[in-house]
Amino acid sequence: MKKLINAPETVVADSLAGLAAAHHGLSVDIENKVITRAAAPTAGKVGLVSGGGSGHEPLHGGFVGFGMLDAACPGEVFTSPVPDQMLAATRAVNGGAGVLHIVKNYTGDVLNFEMAAELASDDGIEVTQVVVNDDVAVQDSLYTAGRRGVGATVFVEKIAGALAERGAALADVAAVAGEVNERSRSFGVALSSCTVPAAGKPTFELDDSEIELGIGIHGEPGRSRGEMATAADIAAAAMDAIHADMPLTGDVLVMVNGMGGTPLIELYLVYNEVHKYLTGTGARIARNLVGNYITSLEMQGFSVTVCRLTDALTELWDAPVDTPALRWGR
Amino acid sequence: MKKLINAPETVVADSLAGLAAAHHGLSVDIENKVITRAAAPTAGKVGLVSGGGSGHEPLHGGFVGFGMLDAACPGEVFTSPVPDQMLAATRAVNGGAGVLHIVKNYTGDVLNFEMAAELASDDGIEVTQVVVNDDVAVQDSLYTAGRRGVGATVFVEKIAGALAERGAALADVAAVAGEVNERSRSFGVALSSCTVPAAGKPTFELDDSEIELGIGIHGEPGRSRGEMATAADIAAAAMDAIHADMPLTGDVLVMVNGMGGTPLIELYLVYNEVHKYLTGTGARIARNLVGNYITSLEMQGFSVTVCRLTDALTELWDAPVDTPALRWGR
Repeated sequence: MKKLINAPETVVADSLAGLAAAHHGLSVDIENKVITRAAAPTAGKVGLVSGGGSGHEPLHGGFVGFGMLDAACPGEVFTSPVPDQMLAATRAVNGGAGVLHIVKNYTGDVLNFEMAAELASDDGIEVTQVVVNDDVAVQDSLYTAGRRGVGATVFVEKIAGALAERGAALADVAAVAGEVNERSRSFGVALSSCTVPAAGKPTFELDDSEIELGIGIHGEPGRSRGEMATAADIAAAAMDAIHADMPLTGDVLVMVNGMGGTPLIELYLVYNEVHKYLTGTGARIARNLVGNYITSLEMQGFSVTVCRLTDALTELWDAPVDTPALRWGR
Repeated sequence: MKKLINAPETVVADSLAGLAAAHHGLSVDIENKVITRAAAPTAGKVGLVSGGGSGHEPLHGGFVGFGMLDAACPGEVFTSPVPDQMLAATRAVNGGAGVLHIVKNYTGDVLNFEMAAELASDDGIEVTQVVVNDDVAVQDSLYTAGRRGVGATVFVEKIAGALAERGAALADVAAVAGEVNERSRSFGVALSSCTVPAAGKPTFELDDSEIELGIGIHGEPGRSRGEMATAADIAAAAMDAIHADMPLTGDVLVMVNGMGGTPLIELYLVYNEVHKYLTGTGARIARNLVGNYITSLEMQGFSVTVCRLTDALTELWDAPVDTPALRWGR
């Protein structure tokens, strides 16, 4: 295992120290693993909190800032954060208008966020939870009942964050978060495994000629193993899985996301194939992201996420954002 | 070799097609491999052209746009572009105020850009060349006489681009580009090799416990092979090499750059070590970048680049930029 770390047990804390040193707009409680905007809370604004295991950077800490999240709670690598973290984050960003918890659908995350919401409720903080479950690859999985939450989380955090920034009420922010989730689908492909530092060995094994279709972001099994193929064929397999679940017409927002170990030259190549595929189904990519946004440590591979836009969602996507990982228009 | 490609011989063209599809602010001549701003040329503005082998994305195409480059010429993977590409780019961005060629110091790149400048001169276009040579690792290298050009290229393109956007004269834009280069130093470390698609096998071999200190961005040999060590020790080795060549006090701009296969959680961890090191030498990191900016395909590792800032350089760094890979303030 060759990793740029000091020790497996200090990876998350050491990396958070780097995040804190790099971004003065963030306030990072390294011991309790809570990242908030430095100026939190914003009075009168709905607070947005997300979180989940570490190892998916920039998700979620890289999306804390104006126009997106108010706080993020990173767990240990590929491990759910605990309710105390979530409660501390919720308290820190409560500006009096309630708090939205954006939760990827993994059983541990969902239960812990529910517990945190109950504790926050005891404090008199109104909390609503939205669960993201956009991965069409499998119905149930290693850590999940129902569909897993993956790339659509980025879209939900951006779009709900924009609406919250405008002063919308908690119910409306929660509604748009749910709408984005319902209109989004994802599918991931792995060319290699990844190694959790504390485990010290690859999460799974893939032969030199094999790929995993429908991979989860923690290396959970997907739909099938396949032979390595052209980017066109692999992208088509991913898009077929999405298309089988959702009509692909009209304006769409597309993310071609790297799993952490895939170079940008390949991600743009995959984007080209996705673009051709969607043109063929009658969709128009109105907005896009190409890069590393929700990763799986150093895994090689990609995921593609498609959200069917409305004019209102497009306008919220375009709204200013100022976070470490997404920044425009301000 | 598992890569998300269709065929080794179409990697660059297929990826450029994706870049074109994703970014409507760019105009991409896929056949001739020239990327320009869609609205090029900008009348009365000095045009900035850079280029080099592909495989280092987002460098250079991802830095074409307002406040940075006017054009980029990507060669084949790890192969210099040809003078015809550079000439076409130079003509396309000539707004009547001359054109600056920003060239990383590799013999092929330098000679080809010189030839393109001569041809452009025959057309009556004034061209000045600035050569970037910030890599302190080795004096001469596989493809280079003198120091190699690496991470400082990003700083040169951003800062010179900002000055050009303000309408400065070619001599002044070239001067600030040279100043940034002179005030910048870099050092890279590889944990793994990378595989050029056309070669089909790793450029070099590293044992499971080995790292290459002073790696070049094409996998050129560095200073020495070392045993895998902690991030703190590896970062200190990189910073010692830089510090031996340049005083590290005052305000600095720092980039901790991923080589393509290193996850962001590790890059922030390295940034933390670099931050501690620079605090120890009496420097203050006034600005920073942490992420993948000048890569070597899927190589695992990082480079660190330090630029000693002045107030004027800081102001130009902060100026608005709107490119695929760097975007703020507009």
